[in-house]
Amino acid sequence: MKALAAPIAVSLGDPAGVGPEIIVAAWQALKASGPAFVVVGDAKTLLARGAPAVRRISDPMHALAAFREAVPVLDHPLPEPVTPGLPAAFSAPHIIAWIETAARLAQHGAAAAVVTAPIAKTLLYDAGFAFPGHTEFLGEICGVALPVMMLTAADLKVTLVTIHEPLARVSALLSRERIIAVGETTARALRNDFGIAGPRLAIAALNPHAGEGGALGREEIEIIAPAVAELRRLGYDATGPAPGDSLFHPEARLTYDVALCMYHDQALIPVKMLDFWGGVNVTLGLPIVRTSPDHGVAYALAGAGVARPDSLIAAVKLAAEISARRQRA
Amino acid sequence: MKALAAPIAVSLGDPAGVGPEIIVAAWQALKASGPAFVVVGDAKTLLARGAPAVRRISDPMHALAAFREAVPVLDHPLPEPVTPGLPAAFSAPHIIAWIETAARLAQHGAAAAVVTAPIAKTLLYDAGFAFPGHTEFLGEICGVALPVMMLTAADLKVTLVTIHEPLARVSALLSRERIIAVGETTARALRNDFGIAGPRLAIAALNPHAGEGGALGREEIEIIAPAVAELRRLGYDATGPAPGDSLFHPEARLTYDVALCMYHDQALIPVKMLDFWGGVNVTLGLPIVRTSPDHGVAYALAGAGVARPDSLIAAVKLAAEISARRQRA
Repeated sequence: MKALAAPIAVSLGDPAGVGPEIIVAAWQALKASGPAFVVVGDAKTLLARGAPAVRRISDPMHALAAFREAVPVLDHPLPEPVTPGLPAAFSAPHIIAWIETAARLAQHGAAAAVVTAPIAKTLLYDAGFAFPGHTEFLGEICGVALPVMMLTAADLKVTLVTIHEPLARVSALLSRERIIAVGETTARALRNDFGIAGPRLAIAALNPHAGEGGALGREEIEIIAPAVAELRRLGYDATGPAPGDSLFHPEARLTYDVALCMYHDQALIPVKMLDFWGGVNVTLGLPIVRTSPDHGVAYALAGAGVARPDSLIAAVKLAAEISARRQRA
Repeated sequence: MKALAAPIAVSLGDPAGVGPEIIVAAWQALKASGPAFVVVGDAKTLLARGAPAVRRISDPMHALAAFREAVPVLDHPLPEPVTPGLPAAFSAPHIIAWIETAARLAQHGAAAAVVTAPIAKTLLYDAGFAFPGHTEFLGEICGVALPVMMLTAADLKVTLVTIHEPLARVSALLSRERIIAVGETTARALRNDFGIAGPRLAIAALNPHAGEGGALGREEIEIIAPAVAELRRLGYDATGPAPGDSLFHPEARLTYDVALCMYHDQALIPVKMLDFWGGVNVTLGLPIVRTSPDHGVAYALAGAGVARPDSLIAAVKLAAEISARRQRA
């Protein structure tokens, strides 16, 4: 892989979750080959969670040279240690600041991309965090109104029209404009970030049997089909709405490059079935490159040293690939 | 396989769909080995769709002897032929009557089970059919208020708390009582029909991340978790609510015998991913045994001879197994 001009910034995430230990494990896996990253967070937490050595640096560029020897850290220390598995309210503002710092580094070109380790949103809500997740927070930082969440598994890419919403609200949140906007952002990102020249978009239905002619729901007729027609009119290779249950079996997956899903579990059930450990979350439509593992803090596993770093490693590699492709463009 | 005391009754389904030709293909596959079935429907349609021979019989028992030589039919003729791929309004009352006749045969012991070939509900709605599907219609015939739909794939069984409902209505339809009733019917059927002594029930959440402590929906807190607690109090091995996207990957599937899903696509996406061609739909909680293929009429394929009979064959075999197990009990 071509060396990046800058390291990837990895935000530490919740220090009580599995984030710190999978970061250490990812560093072990990548230290010889790269891509190099720098952690934005608390250095002592990394040492407590198994890092053989950390290198506190002030300029992210120093991470490129230090990466083979130690975990490079932009140290923004916690006031006291956090116990694995025990989320600490005092850590919340720090967790938020680490994400923002990592994003700013990428905005200024000091980092090639941002990879975020898992956070627990309930902990952050109590600290005044007003976003459903990383995706929306990074959208706010970058001034992008509708960032798009993509999940990737081995041979499947999905993007989400609604993300972290109660299922009962999904129908009311759907609109032609929103589906068209997600479709356009998705198509552009597949072209620019993934190198797919003429991306094929499969748009999922909302209701069972795609509404069965209106008998099982009218969103397909009133919202989704018109959005698909408009995307086609705009020149995109868009098909659908297709019943959710006919979209993800092996033969169906060969017919498109990305599936636009109407709600969280419609997208996440297939991704996690295909690639529970290695799936990656990518935010599309931002000026910066951002990926993350597609799992949560897993407090119950934290500190036991059993959490698998597969998804984080895949996230770092994919962030580097996208960043390299953008540099060439 | 032990011979059944009576044949399985297969309703022809929509004559314009793939039903007739997959019935003929299933007969070809099963004529030597059984289980024997008798078609309830129009004999001429079977001949037009590739049956080398049909045997019009008046007593279902005659199907057992005739099955090796010809497709046995209880002939309830259509007034005129139906063209494959062109649904005919005049056929609708016949389609409905064939299902009801097959069910009555099973109720009276003249058939060991009912297997239903696909119908298109919109066609039947126009003829006054007041049910969302076979499952509810058979519940009405048998006087069962809440029949339960189960889908089976290679290594996955799921049952549905809501079935053919617009997604926006699902939340309002959920109740503790309904989840408990589906859980009890599911557990009983796994014991009696599938021979699983102490079935493990995994109950799915409705919302992303199982509602994330209420931030992404409160149905888990107010409805699903109390239902799981009550099922446990009643002595069932029930767990959950578990996030939909963590329930279906290979390791998760080892931890339960059946997953209770809150809505159609939550159940059908995993089943169709695992076994798009061979999945079977089983109605639980009825006095009669009923299965069906888990696909639709596929008008676009009808008459081309390319529709795969895998799911129908699996449905006939599973119906025979369940019937045999009930006979032994």
